[in-house]
Amino acid sequence: MMQRLGLDVTVIDCRWGDGADEAKLAEILKADTKKQIKAVAVVHNETTTGVTSDIPEVRKTMDTIDHPALLLVDGVSSIGALEFKFDDWRVDVAVTGSQKALSIPTGLGLVCASPKALDAMKSAKLKRVYYDFADMLRTNPSGNVPYTPSLPLLYGMRASIKMLKEEGMQNVHARHFRLAEGARKAVEGWGLQTLCKDPRWKSDSLTVIETPAGIDSQKVVDIAYAKYNLSLGIGLDKVKGKVFRIGHLGNMDELMLCSALCGAEMAMIDAGVKIAPGSGVSKAIDYFQKTAKVIPTRESLVQ
Amino acid sequence: MMQRLGLDVTVIDCRWGDGADEAKLAEILKADTKKQIKAVAVVHNETTTGVTSDIPEVRKTMDTIDHPALLLVDGVSSIGALEFKFDDWRVDVAVTGSQKALSIPTGLGLVCASPKALDAMKSAKLKRVYYDFADMLRTNPSGNVPYTPSLPLLYGMRASIKMLKEEGMQNVHARHFRLAEGARKAVEGWGLQTLCKDPRWKSDSLTVIETPAGIDSQKVVDIAYAKYNLSLGIGLDKVKGKVFRIGHLGNMDELMLCSALCGAEMAMIDAGVKIAPGSGVSKAIDYFQKTAKVIPTRESLVQ
Amino acid sequence: MMQRLGLDVTVIDCRWGDGADEAKLAEILKADTKKQIKAVAVVHNETTTGVTSDIPEVRKTMDTIDHPALLLVDGVSSIGALEFKFDDWRVDVAVTGSQKALSIPTGLGLVCASPKALDAMKSAKLKRVYYDFADMLRTNPSGNVPYTPSLPLLYGMRASIKMLKEEGMQNVHARHFRLAEGARKAVEGWGLQTLCKDPRWKSDSLTVIETPAGIDSQKVVDIAYAKYNLSLGIGLDKVKGKVFRIGHLGNMDELMLCSALCGAEMAMIDAGVKIAPGSGVSKAIDYFQKTAKVIPTRESLVQ
Amino acid sequence: MMQRLGLDVTVIDCRWGDGADEAKLAEILKADTKKQIKAVAVVHNETTTGVTSDIPEVRKTMDTIDHPALLLVDGVSSIGALEFKFDDWRVDVAVTGSQKALSIPTGLGLVCASPKALDAMKSAKLKRVYYDFADMLRTNPSGNVPYTPSLPLLYGMRASIKMLKEEGMQNVHARHFRLAEGARKAVEGWGLQTLCKDPRWKSDSLTVIETPAGIDSQKVVDIAYAKYNLSLGIGLDKVKGKVFRIGHLGNMDELMLCSALCGAEMAMIDAGVKIAPGSGVSKAIDYFQKTAKVIPTRESLVQ
Repeated sequence: MMQRLGLDVTVIDCRWGDGADEAKLAEILKADTKKQIKAVAVVHNETTTGVTSDIPEVRKTMDTIDHPALLLVDGVSSIGALEFKFDDWRVDVAVTGSQKALSIPTGLGLVCASPKALDAMKSAKLKRVYYDFADMLRTNPSGNVPYTPSLPLLYGMRASIKMLKEEGMQNVHARHFRLAEGARKAVEGWGLQTLCKDPRWKSDSLTVIETPAGIDSQKVVDIAYAKYNLSLGIGLDKVKGKVFRIGHLGNMDELMLCSALCGAEMAMIDAGVKIAPGSGVSKAIDYFQKTAKVIPTRESLVQ
Repeated sequence: MMQRLGLDVTVIDCRWGDGADEAKLAEILKADTKKQIKAVAVVHNETTTGVTSDIPEVRKTMDTIDHPALLLVDGVSSIGALEFKFDDWRVDVAVTGSQKALSIPTGLGLVCASPKALDAMKSAKLKRVYYDFADMLRTNPSGNVPYTPSLPLLYGMRASIKMLKEEGMQNVHARHFRLAEGARKAVEGWGLQTLCKDPRWKSDSLTVIETPAGIDSQKVVDIAYAKYNLSLGIGLDKVKGKVFRIGHLGNMDELMLCSALCGAEMAMIDAGVKIAPGSGVSKAIDYFQKTAKVIPTRESLVQ
Repeated sequence: MMQRLGLDVTVIDCRWGDGADEAKLAEILKADTKKQIKAVAVVHNETTTGVTSDIPEVRKTMDTIDHPALLLVDGVSSIGALEFKFDDWRVDVAVTGSQKALSIPTGLGLVCASPKALDAMKSAKLKRVYYDFADMLRTNPSGNVPYTPSLPLLYGMRASIKMLKEEGMQNVHARHFRLAEGARKAVEGWGLQTLCKDPRWKSDSLTVIETPAGIDSQKVVDIAYAKYNLSLGIGLDKVKGKVFRIGHLGNMDELMLCSALCGAEMAMIDAGVKIAPGSGVSKAIDYFQKTAKVIPTRESLVQ
Repeated sequence: MMQRLGLDVTVIDCRWGDGADEAKLAEILKADTKKQIKAVAVVHNETTTGVTSDIPEVRKTMDTIDHPALLLVDGVSSIGALEFKFDDWRVDVAVTGSQKALSIPTGLGLVCASPKALDAMKSAKLKRVYYDFADMLRTNPSGNVPYTPSLPLLYGMRASIKMLKEEGMQNVHARHFRLAEGARKAVEGWGLQTLCKDPRWKSDSLTVIETPAGIDSQKVVDIAYAKYNLSLGIGLDKVKGKVFRIGHLGNMDELMLCSALCGAEMAMIDAGVKIAPGSGVSKAIDYFQKTAKVIPTRESLVQ
């Protein structure tokens, strides 16, 4: 994407299923003795592979070398679901969307910029109109925006943020971990593996599952949709046909995920994966039941 | 209810879990040599016990004896989900509501009356205002109703009926049977029993499950709601504490039901029922997967 | 209605367009030396005629004579729009609906009963099922209701009451008076008259307008609907063909009412009423503009 | 905007309130003997000034000179409200949005490109990512889009287009003309002028009204919003403080517009404009009433 904008970019390639490689980053930053690298761009949670990179560690790597590059983070499938500390981690630009952890329709692109990033904007040379921060900064103080906004989505976002706050962000993160653990137990139950192998990087917002050799994962996704009314994510690019994805972020609970796990089982059996019915979902049920919070009394429910 | 309205009523008592007893009905009708019984009232699908009575057989019983009583049918949890033939079965009054098989909010009470029932109305002596058919009949021809109608529900019903017709009523009935079979397989998997023992009467719109001796079914329902965000039905009246209910009628598919089965498993385990996680839902998954329709090709899905 | 329920009822007839006649009521109550009259039933705001009866005065009449009858009030088109003081006025039963001042769809019938009314219920002999207070009283304490409730309407009512409280009931009443005054100015501008002649009784929730002799008011209503997409109320019963009605209660502001006044003007001209275009709405505009609240500054609007 | 993208642009300046100047365009195109001008960009309906440019005439101008430039048209506030013939007028790129004539929320930007435009794309040098036609063309054939789409808006657009087709595009255009004529009659009634003076260019989707000398139009807009809950458009840029705007496009009828005209009258009086209450809206009422379609009979309305 940045290359298409004519930017000079060094991509740190790594195995699909791994997170951002801090060692390689350190190497590159150290070699940049003239401090010409302007920004380090990281995807916090990679939706294609089910990998959550370690942003604090990336930050620390940059700090240790004392490199002044901006830290740009794609938080599309993380912010609102996983822990994300813009200020503490000294992120410079973070972006997210309305359609993931905020659980509202697609349509809002949300950007947060540090003072340092806004400063950099002043000397930035990329031609831009719609995406220019300056127009936003000029119109926001009077309660306005430069272009016609989508009011329904703004009202929706207000409601969504209210719900997240009522639950408490720590509880939100704990709920996402719990859902992800349930999904991972199911994968174990099936005798399969997630694309992400290193526990440090396993994502809590989605789980990407490898189908066994010889089974086209696309078939699993197609059957789930056509027979069971279930939308699984397909394998993209390098992992096309090799993995399918179960998203579990946003306004979601255990039984919704169980429903998806049941559907995934049925579709896999249809597609020829050798698993026993219930082999995965039973593990999730067991995990969810054993780790559920203390049961509130009926009295506490009727106010 | 009819007694509270001061009506002289003979109730044919039967074991909870059984359907309408045609033999006893025949006996009573035969004894009524003066043909003083004005109506036979039957619940088509009993929501408390998960029993579907055999209306054609009830009709046949009345016909054989040649008894002129009206046939009144409560179709609240059957019409729109189970086969129901008002004309063929020569039902005289049938009632249903908007909140069951029509899948829209509570608020509409729907009544269908035969010419014979409308005739009987003319000599009926029960004091009535709001429920008087005559006001309806007087105002309907001009496209009107006697009282302020709920327009949103009327629009909703139009949409709901359109959806049922698009699916085709035969397919709708088949889908309800299939869901019910899935639920019954799960009950077998748990080693439990439905309250209704006779296959002839097992309901396709809901399944009522007996908890083992010593386990208060209310506890299962409370836990499901409090811990897993799942609304199961409680045991009512005679079967209070002994059964819980899973509804599976209306706009529903396999995975929604799987979700409820998973939740019921977790809540039962919490409540002390000795079942293995996945023991029931795995049977439902197996049944649904094996009996699913032929898989449409991707091409057939993208028009 | 009460007669159809077999109740022995004395109707105090009065000219359509007048409110409840306290003098005649006093006469009847005084004559009832044995205190056999069980209840005085009054419509607070009569939707057919645009008349608001004087409930405090009715109460006072009953008090002066020291008659123990219950005071039953139909507040369907008043409660939530006009001042209504259940406790202060010592009303015994008041009813209203969701579809008027609460501005939500038809479907909820709301009843408020005094301890005295609940006491009377114990000895009441009318056969009843669905409308029995006892079932409500039995189930309410546990946060429940005896029949399947319409949850969407209950959520709607919560939102509606929240909005009324945010505006403040005094402001709500003042707004309804203001809207009604605007409508009445328009009627003056047209050179027409409201059915209600006595200012004491003119309703603030709707205005009922007499069409000139020779003009069928039904025609005005039909044209408004067919040509201008405007629903006016028709003349009912005795005043059929003689009046049309403009409702202005609930979630409504000046410009919405102006819109209806414009449509009424057009439809009246079409129907042959001799009025000049703008003759009525201009008076409403003038009144609304002159009496509008102090203009908030832009700063006060942007928080 | 195009300048900010670093494009070399010649702007044909004209008086605000005038449409695209075909004579000046002809002059420039003729002077371009080497045919280096790549595109002529015109706003079909200018929302700031209430002006509709004459696209067929612009096309004819280009044709007469036989200039090969692309014709790019901004149809944001015209397409779906005013006549627009992409093929007949041989437009090369047209854009519109969801929030104007389609009457759905902001969020969709719709683009239509001619084969010639798609050809030009191949050699275009502007750096682009999100706005690249190529990504669309690559993904559309399989029923897909390159980025996460807003499904609610796509469903909304389907409903909106269905409604437009049911009404018939000719009727839609006629309705917009009729609404605009009503607004223009009101302006005459007020003794004021529209910013657009030439009848050839007066817009049917909005009316831009000049406030008299000495009256800040911003004040009219602020008062309308704060006192009467009415959103008028402010004067932008060169005409700031000099005009206010009334939009009348999309899912709108006569009485909705009357409502806005009443509010504009009140706000103008508040702001010190010397007009009599009703002076404008009465003219609109008169026009709408006299030109309304034949009145359908009641029978034709009840099917």
